[in-house]
Amino acid sequence: MSKSAGAVERSALEGGVAPCCPPLTAGELSDTDAVTMAAMFKALSDPVRLRLFSKVASHPGGEACVCDIQDVGVSQPTVSHHLKKLREAGLLRSERRGTWVYYRIEPSVLAAMGRLLTSP
Amino acid sequence: MSKSAGAVERSALEGGVAPCCPPLTAGELSDTDAVTMAAMFKALSDPVRLRLFSKVASHPGGEACVCDIQDVGVSQPTVSHHLKKLREAGLLRSERRGTWVYYRIEPSVLAAMGRLLTSP
Repeated sequence: MSKSAGAVERSALEGGVAPCCPPLTAGELSDTDAVTMAAMFKALSDPVRLRLFSKVASHPGGEACVCDIQDVGVSQPTVSHHLKKLREAGLLRSERRGTWVYYRIEPSVLAAMGRLLTSP
Repeated sequence: MSKSAGAVERSALEGGVAPCCPPLTAGELSDTDAVTMAAMFKALSDPVRLRLFSKVASHPGGEACVCDIQDVGVSQPTVSHHLKKLREAGLLRSERRGTWVYYRIEPSVLAAMGRLLTSP
């Protein structure tokens, strides 16, 4: 299959749709918002993916070259797969510069997830 | 199989082990902490489960009777399955009182997840 098939899988978040919602303790989540936010939590539900995300998030400036974060004990294609999932969920953005791809956290998405889990 | 087999699946969190960690933006997550926290995010990675959790979390006092939260469009056994997963991940506690089971959020776990996602 052509590479364009992958584009169909892209989350709307990749296009910059703002994530939602008030804290879970403040009110019930709607069906639609639950689907949106569950997809974000799913992106962090794998230990390797969570470690990769933490490596990008804790890098100076919230950006890291893929060359600096791939020592997570899995193969390079597996790293790529996990980074793609994080990108599709809207948690990371990527940019190619020369040989390497750089990943950057999406602060608004991180903030939305944190806000959802805010305690009263 | 006997019901005790299910006990083996229980998360250590059910025993009251405190969740971890500083914000993801503050430092890399260790292997062990990533396993712990990914399991919590996994509990919220299903839309129905996330809605059930939001129903308990937004109920007055952070506690709800299962009779008040089961209108999420799935069967009662499916609701029970999801509530079990949330309990095993340490996000909810349950208590039987008479006919009904009551679910209560575990504020320390919610706070730990929120802290992990805190933006700088």
